[in-house]
Amino acid sequence: MSGMQLSEQDRADIIATAEAAAEAAREITLKYFRGQALNTESKLTEGFDPVTVADRGSEEAMRAVIAARRPDDAILGEEFPPKPGTSGLTWVLDPIDGTRGFISGTPTWGVLIAVRSADECLYGVIDQPYIGERFVGGFGQAKVTGPHGERALAVRTDVTLENAIIFSTFPEVGSEEEGEAFHDLAHRCKLTRYGMDCYAYALLAAGQIDLVVEAGLQAYDILAPIAVIEAAGGIVTDWHGGPVLEGGRVLAAASKELHAQAVSILSTY
Amino acid sequence: MSGMQLSEQDRADIIATAEAAAEAAREITLKYFRGQALNTESKLTEGFDPVTVADRGSEEAMRAVIAARRPDDAILGEEFPPKPGTSGLTWVLDPIDGTRGFISGTPTWGVLIAVRSADECLYGVIDQPYIGERFVGGFGQAKVTGPHGERALAVRTDVTLENAIIFSTFPEVGSEEEGEAFHDLAHRCKLTRYGMDCYAYALLAAGQIDLVVEAGLQAYDILAPIAVIEAAGGIVTDWHGGPVLEGGRVLAAASKELHAQAVSILSTY
Repeated sequence: MSGMQLSEQDRADIIATAEAAAEAAREITLKYFRGQALNTESKLTEGFDPVTVADRGSEEAMRAVIAARRPDDAILGEEFPPKPGTSGLTWVLDPIDGTRGFISGTPTWGVLIAVRSADECLYGVIDQPYIGERFVGGFGQAKVTGPHGERALAVRTDVTLENAIIFSTFPEVGSEEEGEAFHDLAHRCKLTRYGMDCYAYALLAAGQIDLVVEAGLQAYDILAPIAVIEAAGGIVTDWHGGPVLEGGRVLAAASKELHAQAVSILSTY
Repeated sequence: MSGMQLSEQDRADIIATAEAAAEAAREITLKYFRGQALNTESKLTEGFDPVTVADRGSEEAMRAVIAARRPDDAILGEEFPPKPGTSGLTWVLDPIDGTRGFISGTPTWGVLIAVRSADECLYGVIDQPYIGERFVGGFGQAKVTGPHGERALAVRTDVTLENAIIFSTFPEVGSEEEGEAFHDLAHRCKLTRYGMDCYAYALLAAGQIDLVVEAGLQAYDILAPIAVIEAAGGIVTDWHGGPVLEGGRVLAAASKELHAQAVSILSTY
């Protein structure tokens, strides 16, 4: 479906708002990442651990940016109640995707920002504040900016299953059955790696890896990756090849061929 | 053992040489990381894949720096035959630790540089070129420099086993028995994560995580982590609590208490 008709002005405004929200989230999350604020801020946490404070602060900062610049849009975030809107657009926010990576100090968690209509994901940002790396997709954009400049995002499409690199965040993946399904697929691939959270989707969009399989995701976990990967030419669905805008069991693939092969295995579970 | 007596001048020269070697390795590895050089350089690879070209180029560049500045020191590296020396010091180099992470585009592989005498590791560098992050330890230094400035490295010492964060690169760890030993220990910890290669040791030195357990390591995989972690106050041994300068089964721990608890479990395997 082609979905909503947005003017050039609307698109530019959404892109600028997403950038401003990502900048606001960077400032907050970096304040807490690796315990930078532990000594000075611990009295302010009122019983919350630093990651919870960072998570809530990051979402509040993004909500404030979006509400000020796009007052008619709805906002759905992980940490606070939904804000209704009238424009037909919803901002979907995950202030820290990969909180377990965050508390471990790994630089592969991310801030996820997505803009969706009723039936499609229009724009998405995967931001890694510590590296200073931002992957964006939608409205004709598919690029990463980071410490070594700007590059276009494009999946690689010439990899067969037996040469594919597959990622999931945890080796257990989800339930016992979901774990079995993943490993059934992973054993047919060249290389299996873990531990990257949303950063794995960014690597798929960047043409570095070929498959990401996860289970039990929420809408706010997957909408931004959908936008970025689709803009880069990849495919994100559930394990049966259907839409996954609301989360659940996620399959991201770099090519139609790999996607079909993965669905043929995962859909039997 | 107190080992070799080195003058202030010697120490400063070793530190400066290590920095220069790390800079040389950065330049080469970044040329190949994420396929930056795939189009322009593929004719030069003579059948080698890009990571092999990067690996060899990175070590050659470091060897050239060290041989020019410290001609009497020996050099031991992953990719080329040992270079003998007369000073009693040996540079131990891993030009890309985590080649599987490198080919997947994850920013958690590293360049490892260590300087050892016959009986101890004196100085070490864990460098992550893409992030621009450098962890160093030895000769009174224990610090990380990176995109957000410089910080002292110090392990955290107040974490009990049931609250510990434990890392290994692969969930299989090594042999079946080694995997069992790891999971026996990991099940007693709060959080288990995978996929970081040498970056996990850097996180332990930075006070972010508490245990790293691996098997089948080579000397060049572990000497730089030993120097950095020991400088930050941590402990690196084999699974029985003995020296691990030559590689093998490695246990890195943030505190004496955690180390003793981990040895009591791992040494039964």
